[in-house]
Amino acid sequence: MTHTTDATHDPNLRSWVESANHKDTDFPIQNLPFGVFRALGSAEPARIGVAIGDQILDLSKCYQVGLLQELPEQLQAACTASNLNLLMSVGSESVSILRRHLSELLRSDRQQPASATEILIPMSSAELLLPASTGDYTDFYASIFHATNVGKLFRPDNPLLPNYKYVPIAYHGRASSIVSSGTSIKRPQGQRKKPEDPAPSFSSSAMLDYELEVGFFVGVGNELGQPIPIDRAEEHIFGLCLVNDWSGRDIQAWEYQPLGPFLSKSFATTISPWVVTLEALAPFRCPAFVRSEADPQPLPYLSSPLDASSGGIDIMLEVCIVSAQMREAKMHPFRLSRGSFGQMYWTLAQMLAHHSSNGCNLRSGDLIASGTVSGAEEGSQGCLLEITQRGSKPVTLPTGELRSFLADGDEVILRGYCQKEGYARVGFGECRGTILPA
Amino acid sequence: MTHTTDATHDPNLRSWVESANHKDTDFPIQNLPFGVFRALGSAEPARIGVAIGDQILDLSKCYQVGLLQELPEQLQAACTASNLNLLMSVGSESVSILRRHLSELLRSDRQQPASATEILIPMSSAELLLPASTGDYTDFYASIFHATNVGKLFRPDNPLLPNYKYVPIAYHGRASSIVSSGTSIKRPQGQRKKPEDPAPSFSSSAMLDYELEVGFFVGVGNELGQPIPIDRAEEHIFGLCLVNDWSGRDIQAWEYQPLGPFLSKSFATTISPWVVTLEALAPFRCPAFVRSEADPQPLPYLSSPLDASSGGIDIMLEVCIVSAQMREAKMHPFRLSRGSFGQMYWTLAQMLAHHSSNGCNLRSGDLIASGTVSGAEEGSQGCLLEITQRGSKPVTLPTGELRSFLADGDEVILRGYCQKEGYARVGFGECRGTILPA
Repeated sequence: MTHTTDATHDPNLRSWVESANHKDTDFPIQNLPFGVFRALGSAEPARIGVAIGDQILDLSKCYQVGLLQELPEQLQAACTASNLNLLMSVGSESVSILRRHLSELLRSDRQQPASATEILIPMSSAELLLPASTGDYTDFYASIFHATNVGKLFRPDNPLLPNYKYVPIAYHGRASSIVSSGTSIKRPQGQRKKPEDPAPSFSSSAMLDYELEVGFFVGVGNELGQPIPIDRAEEHIFGLCLVNDWSGRDIQAWEYQPLGPFLSKSFATTISPWVVTLEALAPFRCPAFVRSEADPQPLPYLSSPLDASSGGIDIMLEVCIVSAQMREAKMHPFRLSRGSFGQMYWTLAQMLAHHSSNGCNLRSGDLIASGTVSGAEEGSQGCLLEITQRGSKPVTLPTGELRSFLADGDEVILRGYCQKEGYARVGFGECRGTILPA
Repeated sequence: MTHTTDATHDPNLRSWVESANHKDTDFPIQNLPFGVFRALGSAEPARIGVAIGDQILDLSKCYQVGLLQELPEQLQAACTASNLNLLMSVGSESVSILRRHLSELLRSDRQQPASATEILIPMSSAELLLPASTGDYTDFYASIFHATNVGKLFRPDNPLLPNYKYVPIAYHGRASSIVSSGTSIKRPQGQRKKPEDPAPSFSSSAMLDYELEVGFFVGVGNELGQPIPIDRAEEHIFGLCLVNDWSGRDIQAWEYQPLGPFLSKSFATTISPWVVTLEALAPFRCPAFVRSEADPQPLPYLSSPLDASSGGIDIMLEVCIVSAQMREAKMHPFRLSRGSFGQMYWTLAQMLAHHSSNGCNLRSGDLIASGTVSGAEEGSQGCLLEITQRGSKPVTLPTGELRSFLADGDEVILRGYCQKEGYARVGFGECRGTILPA
């Protein structure tokens, strides 16, 4: 699979949806990410939409007014389902067909459909729901900068374990507690124990953190016992979203040996509502992590000839915070970090190939996240644990408040977008969550 | 919740299904476990059944012939579904009502229904399927003997980590690769590295193992953010089954730091088909693990007054093996271990309360397994890793074959049953799986 661009990426394309032509929108006609929504405050069935500027193109309505009738029946069924699972299962070629169809439908040089007012709903009038029903959620650990920074804090003498440069390390996450952007996050309780404490106590986490991650949804799955080879891996990726893997660091430090993180993570994981297809991201591919001469090359089952040219994706990611006090004072969100997804040690294809290499079956709608995205540069660390050095160097907010970890009332906002000379900006929108008291 | 017995446990009860009255059956009228099946070789929809002797009582058929009409509508709907999820969600009181109804229906001193031949299907003519759709699968580590034995092998200087006696250690497992008893298990490939190897290789696991576990299905779930208190925990347990958590020990040793087991486990987990309700197990409750004076008592959120009398369940568990050569020679399965579930360090209620203590939402149909069940006694170790001391002391099979770990063609059979003077035997049936080459 090569990462080719086609007419849908043409930067000169404009839409008759005016807000999609604004240079700062995350959702120009070149993006066309999929999501699931219902009208705000209604109890109507969830339906599939496509973000276009500040509007949502309602695919169920498009179907009803006959705008999808040229598409294969399977695609029509997928577009009118109540989540994206069926669309995820049809395969990347079919999704391409749909993408081109929607691009044609929304282009300013095509006749605006008479039904335009019916098939659009303002994003501000919609409740954005989880895009898919996720059977299994897996979280990787694919940033070597994150692994090294965190390793230093937990194991100063042994920051990066010997397997890291060979194994795309991951653990199974909790699927039930994946929540949509905007859902409030209740501070978890749990066992925690400071080194000087004789015994643990059970109380609210005092070291609540976010983790900036990028996730992808599995498109077509594989049968149990049938690994997906690395050179076919991207065909099984439907699209990407932002993931906030909330973490109770004190709970994590006490519980994680020897079987890994459990309750420190399973209380909530927030994802952004719009799933940006791999195809929309084609212009923003970049070389995979460049390993030094001294570092091992990936084993053959993790090696792809595309890595050197376009194994990575250059997504600019940032994390902002709004404290209760800042919100009260109507202050702008304060940026905690900014960095690129382009320098992950393992690519998405490597994650997927590794995951299925033992025969494990992946299913349409499964969510696979990258692990915290941290870069080499100062200011690009994707969680407070790293930024504040486990709380020892608190961040000062514009109000003068200090943050070692998250306080009740803090809202964390993840953002991501791709920008490149000669192409329209393709963004992910936001992934938000506010901390409630325990 | 106390563990009371009622008329359904009466050892004098007999069924008009003759095979249910045999003293060695796992499925007397006192058991009535639930499962999901279809006629062998058919493509008919899956339906719910109850094991009775060597027969299955077909609940859909019972409904059709009017034998369930006295039950609340919700229960009737649950009995005619294609898996147990709805029945799991109705709550333990409703399941009790159903259990009493089925007990009445099957008693030898009641009129045998005219439809008896219609509502029964021989177990040998049925394909037994997964009992539920499992959203999340969690695996605990609740046997201190297992944790200590394994700890010695992986960390000789530090076998039991400091958190063990405080935290019911667990990790998220893979839900997609849970398979029903009888499904063949393909030997996984993966990265492995012997200490003397300069780098890992990717090849078939050479240290394939089973793990004898007991699992339970979550009945009524909880809302995200609403922990289940320990004294209500058992109300959320629908019933139990046997679990074989297949493990590639070489893959595990290399991958598990720092985030826990992943591909070493996710290639397959086999469960037994019949779900034995907690109510059926009431006569076999036993005291929870007795902690020594020197050991910490469980923290308050994990303490239940019932522990001393009946926190545990005395299930006798055994593991047998049949090699290809033994099968060829028509030899009986060879027993590898035998021990009781009664001496787990953490109770099922503690596992469930801990799991939800951070607010994590459990859903009907979620599977929570105990971790390998090993006892203190010689011969009660629940996996080959322990029995053969990581392969250094192979087991000799009756054919003279040696087993450090599983060979292709080996079939592993888990069995479990409760037996006690004055009560009918209540069994789990078998959990089987045969290893196929990679």
